[in-house]
Amino acid sequence: MLKVEHIGIAVKKLQSSIPLFEQLLNTPCYKTEEVSSEGVNTAFFQTGDSKIELLEPTEEDSPIARFINKKGEGMHHIAFEVENIEAEMKRLQALGFELLNEKPKNGADNKLICFLHPKTTNGILVELCQEKGASEGKS
Amino acid sequence: MLKVEHIGIAVKKLQSSIPLFEQLLNTPCYKTEEVSSEGVNTAFFQTGDSKIELLEPTEEDSPIARFINKKGEGMHHIAFEVENIEAEMKRLQALGFELLNEKPKNGADNKLICFLHPKTTNGILVELCQEKGASEGKS
Repeated sequence: MLKVEHIGIAVKKLQSSIPLFEQLLNTPCYKTEEVSSEGVNTAFFQTGDSKIELLEPTEEDSPIARFINKKGEGMHHIAFEVENIEAEMKRLQALGFELLNEKPKNGADNKLICFLHPKTTNGILVELCQEKGASEGKS
Repeated sequence: MLKVEHIGIAVKKLQSSIPLFEQLLNTPCYKTEEVSSEGVNTAFFQTGDSKIELLEPTEEDSPIARFINKKGEGMHHIAFEVENIEAEMKRLQALGFELLNEKPKNGADNKLICFLHPKTTNGILVELCQEKGASEGKS
């Protein structure tokens, strides 16, 4: 794991949460992006070497909508940047961590991603992410 | 806000969670520290420019014990490093964010800290922290 790439935060409405986080972090939202495959609109803020990613559901039965219905708005996942997502998936699976997708899939922000099941990570939804086009073959 | 200083994670037992996070993050725990004023034992891992802080309750009625009883193990707070905590507390209070302590208090890892109430931050417990002895007078 190279660093905390971003922290994902589930919110009901970007329209109100973007200005809230601009005030809190004292920095402007630099990008919004829809990820239709996940049923979310995302908004990004840079803080140091990491990002805050707000996640607004676009569909009533999307994972983020179900999360908010069950737990309310708040911290949803931690994403760690890795150099080689397939090697890292293999390493973690061999240690007993459960992967939520067998192969890397497309995420927001030009990333290949994989989630780990919270039951094997002390209740935390962990995302691995690798920049698309980043060098492969390294571990 | 300078960066994500650490992400706080509530766990039942450091004894089992330290090896789990050493495997997950592929890095050793570099420090443990008891913060008796908060009723917690803490354990730290470095990942990039940020840390993961595990929080184990040492008392049955401590805030972390109550958090785990209510919500289970998992993400507890996000801590942002600031240059001047008193200036940042004033800035945020003026914007309507609610502070959980009126003056900076002592936290783990040689820090002055202040928490913001989750009701004003989309459900996230936000910690401001300043390294003790860090230069003051800057905003």
